[in-house]
Amino acid sequence: MPEKPQVLNHQIVADTAIFCVESQQLRFSNGVERTYERLVGKGNHAGAVMIVALDNDHNVMLIREYSAGTESYELSLPKGLIEHGETVFDAANRELKEETGFGAENIQFLTEMTVSPGYMSYRIQVVLAMDLYSEKLEGDEPEPIEVIPTSLEQAIYLANSDEITEARAIAALYMARDRIKQTEMPDALESVF
Amino acid sequence: MPEKPQVLNHQIVADTAIFCVESQQLRFSNGVERTYERLVGKGNHAGAVMIVALDNDHNVMLIREYSAGTESYELSLPKGLIEHGETVFDAANRELKEETGFGAENIQFLTEMTVSPGYMSYRIQVVLAMDLYSEKLEGDEPEPIEVIPTSLEQAIYLANSDEITEARAIAALYMARDRIKQTEMPDALESVF
Repeated sequence: MPEKPQVLNHQIVADTAIFCVESQQLRFSNGVERTYERLVGKGNHAGAVMIVALDNDHNVMLIREYSAGTESYELSLPKGLIEHGETVFDAANRELKEETGFGAENIQFLTEMTVSPGYMSYRIQVVLAMDLYSEKLEGDEPEPIEVIPTSLEQAIYLANSDEITEARAIAALYMARDRIKQTEMPDALESVF
Repeated sequence: MPEKPQVLNHQIVADTAIFCVESQQLRFSNGVERTYERLVGKGNHAGAVMIVALDNDHNVMLIREYSAGTESYELSLPKGLIEHGETVFDAANRELKEETGFGAENIQFLTEMTVSPGYMSYRIQVVLAMDLYSEKLEGDEPEPIEVIPTSLEQAIYLANSDEITEARAIAALYMARDRIKQTEMPDALESVF
């Protein structure tokens, strides 16, 4: 892997309510210079978390809400920002309660993902939430979010049929299915031997 | 699903070399009003395409290149913008030749994904490219891209161990594996009956 490019210059070229664009002039280790623009965080939160919440029958809590980016109602997974002072798990449980009306006794780290590493510094933590219980917290949603418990297999089918389009949700569903299979393997073996 | 919110007002609040931010004042069907910001396309291209390119042994062409957003060298899949007048398949084959030194005789549509539908209008087409042949086109990369042929299973392992972090690449690898399994199923059945 080459040495990382040197940052010759950088400046904020746009700063709106939620987006901050930085321009960076880079010199690559081979001497080539390029100017890039990247979205950087505004420092008003401590990252983001997406939640694969599974009930005891392995139904995943899908939500449908309005997405202003694509101007459409999208089926996806609960997610939200991590507030300063919150752990990933605190934020996951709060967002889950706000968006689905469930809390979770058991929250496990699944992975950390980027959504567009070429252009955004943004990273999101993904957790698996299980042992659910009913608890509703008020969120800041403009209208009620539709919660649709769906079997994990059906959710992956929906991802393959354009009903779920959000890449990180699709990746999280597949990774959760792998994790569940791995977890269940010892039981499966036990029942054989 | 509720009726889509009404757009009461919209205006461009930032317009840089590559990012355009639109502010939209929305009225939801329940009467609640909110202002959102979203990244919109600048109209200088016809979308984007990501390529899962598999050789005859089902090795996928991973690439490693510098990602200015995360300021790190990232392992991911080849991708690029679709130029006006190009089909998705033309663009996929061009980008593949530029980034990996291979063209493909057989390119199939796999899916369309969003990366952050709440905040970006952006969509990306994902294709499966097979029957590869050697052909290098010059791209606009500042330094040579490292091409790493990796078995599909190993690539999914890398996605689960933080070596591959880009959500759409992870989703595409899982979906390609499913597609390959489905395609091979008839042969498997034939050998049984």
